[in-house]
Amino acid sequence: MATEKELLDVISTIFTASKNESVLVGIGDDAAVIKASLTPIALAADMAVEGTHFSRHWSSLYEIGAKITSANLADIFAMGGNPEFLLVSAALPSGISVEEVQELALGIADEATSVGANIVGGDLTFSEKIVISISVFGSVARPIQRSGALVGDDVVISKITGESAAGLDLLRRGILDGNSAEHRNPTVNYQSAQAISAIAHSMIDVSDGLVSELVHIATASHVGIAITREALEAAPGFAHLKLLANEHGSDVWQWILHGGEDHAFVATVAAGSKLPAGFTRIGSVIDGSRVHVDGFIVEHQGYEHFAL
Amino acid sequence: MATEKELLDVISTIFTASKNESVLVGIGDDAAVIKASLTPIALAADMAVEGTHFSRHWSSLYEIGAKITSANLADIFAMGGNPEFLLVSAALPSGISVEEVQELALGIADEATSVGANIVGGDLTFSEKIVISISVFGSVARPIQRSGALVGDDVVISKITGESAAGLDLLRRGILDGNSAEHRNPTVNYQSAQAISAIAHSMIDVSDGLVSELVHIATASHVGIAITREALEAAPGFAHLKLLANEHGSDVWQWILHGGEDHAFVATVAAGSKLPAGFTRIGSVIDGSRVHVDGFIVEHQGYEHFAL
Repeated sequence: MATEKELLDVISTIFTASKNESVLVGIGDDAAVIKASLTPIALAADMAVEGTHFSRHWSSLYEIGAKITSANLADIFAMGGNPEFLLVSAALPSGISVEEVQELALGIADEATSVGANIVGGDLTFSEKIVISISVFGSVARPIQRSGALVGDDVVISKITGESAAGLDLLRRGILDGNSAEHRNPTVNYQSAQAISAIAHSMIDVSDGLVSELVHIATASHVGIAITREALEAAPGFAHLKLLANEHGSDVWQWILHGGEDHAFVATVAAGSKLPAGFTRIGSVIDGSRVHVDGFIVEHQGYEHFAL
Repeated sequence: MATEKELLDVISTIFTASKNESVLVGIGDDAAVIKASLTPIALAADMAVEGTHFSRHWSSLYEIGAKITSANLADIFAMGGNPEFLLVSAALPSGISVEEVQELALGIADEATSVGANIVGGDLTFSEKIVISISVFGSVARPIQRSGALVGDDVVISKITGESAAGLDLLRRGILDGNSAEHRNPTVNYQSAQAISAIAHSMIDVSDGLVSELVHIATASHVGIAITREALEAAPGFAHLKLLANEHGSDVWQWILHGGEDHAFVATVAAGSKLPAGFTRIGSVIDGSRVHVDGFIVEHQGYEHFAL
């Protein structure tokens, strides 16, 4: 069994692998210290608990580390910001091996490094089930809030939603093939958030499901949102999802409208705006309230991710 | 049983009770956004797990919330900084009541507010045992590191250590009187850190035990540290601790040298410096290495708090 000192050493080594000249004091003191920021600062936190947010039955520790990190990074991108520094706290089972901890830390570090962010501190402790809590700190010149949607805006998505939900559905049926990769470790296209943020009036990332996120925008902006299944069917990836759903007797619309954790970015932009590559128009912002799919009011169903 | 929506509502209400004009976007969006910072930024994180860091047998949820918050705030003060914003993530048992969650949130909010800090975000999820993870973000004009101790410096402490360990010792014997208050919810004198930071060459807060923290300073500064029991005996509170130890057949030096979680501040300052009120000189920084008590090398014993 690894000693606590050994675990801390391997984690510190992995987390300090990439140096950043903005870091004045890194891992190893009471607090990290980074240089003053000239732009406003975005702060977000996510906590993931074994059994609730992930399962070691079908996800590797590397995937688990990357997945919780990507959820965190996506929050900053969805605000129109750039993540820069992370604090990573973890409670781990006391029997965990050095190699397992390395795998988890590498998953976190690789995902952070992919967007140029560094881990500057955190905390390590023990519990029966794995709990990972990440805080992220980023810069954001112009915050894009949920409350910015304007009547007449187009509603756009960076990719089809539902792939993570589809993966979870398959995993629960015991199918462990590549079609569940998007559940085990979603590929978040952070660049799409950066591309749309130049023109977005409002933006959010899909952690709880498309309808749930659209309800958040509609409520915060005091507008209604009307989308169509026809428009969603035109998004790249829809045909593959539909095929999977047919094969396994699942409802593709449940996945697309209510599945969470894809971390697709949903934004509203001025009607007719030229969209960045990969984005699909799925509807419009309308006078009124609530979310309407093909004219019917749809409520959020499914898993709720309770970020403050 | 409380719904998740109810819990989020009561927490958000408690956490947004005090407004801060530096907060551009508060709780309720993908991320909080705060104004640009003109000074360097200190970041620290702490995670506390039920059964490992606290026990509901003898601590109220209010005390638990305040205690984990104070540990976090102390990290920023120990760096010579001022905490400003907190992200609070919690995993709670699904059967928890609205009132219990309010109590926990109030403990956190009251401790943060006591130093002018605001909670701007976080995450809420569920697990069998309570896990609380707090990140804190502060300003620090001149970071005071563990590595700044100079040979010849006086070693000073803001208060006698060991009161938290004494409290835990009594609680484990089933004695629930006021003498364990410093374990259940340590009174951290944050102002003492601010006062000493003007002249400190190095500083740390006592989370793991006095000797352990002095070892951190000695190692980071490439020096030795020599303290005496006679000097510690002159600190206010020593006589009371000694009395408690005698009453219960405990070793007062085990509490003072190796007890953790007091969050007393330990600093080194130029020899003969005029000290702020409450500080006691306990020894000197010497050529060499390790920590010496009355001339004997002493190693860390006891609970280790593994902050990165």
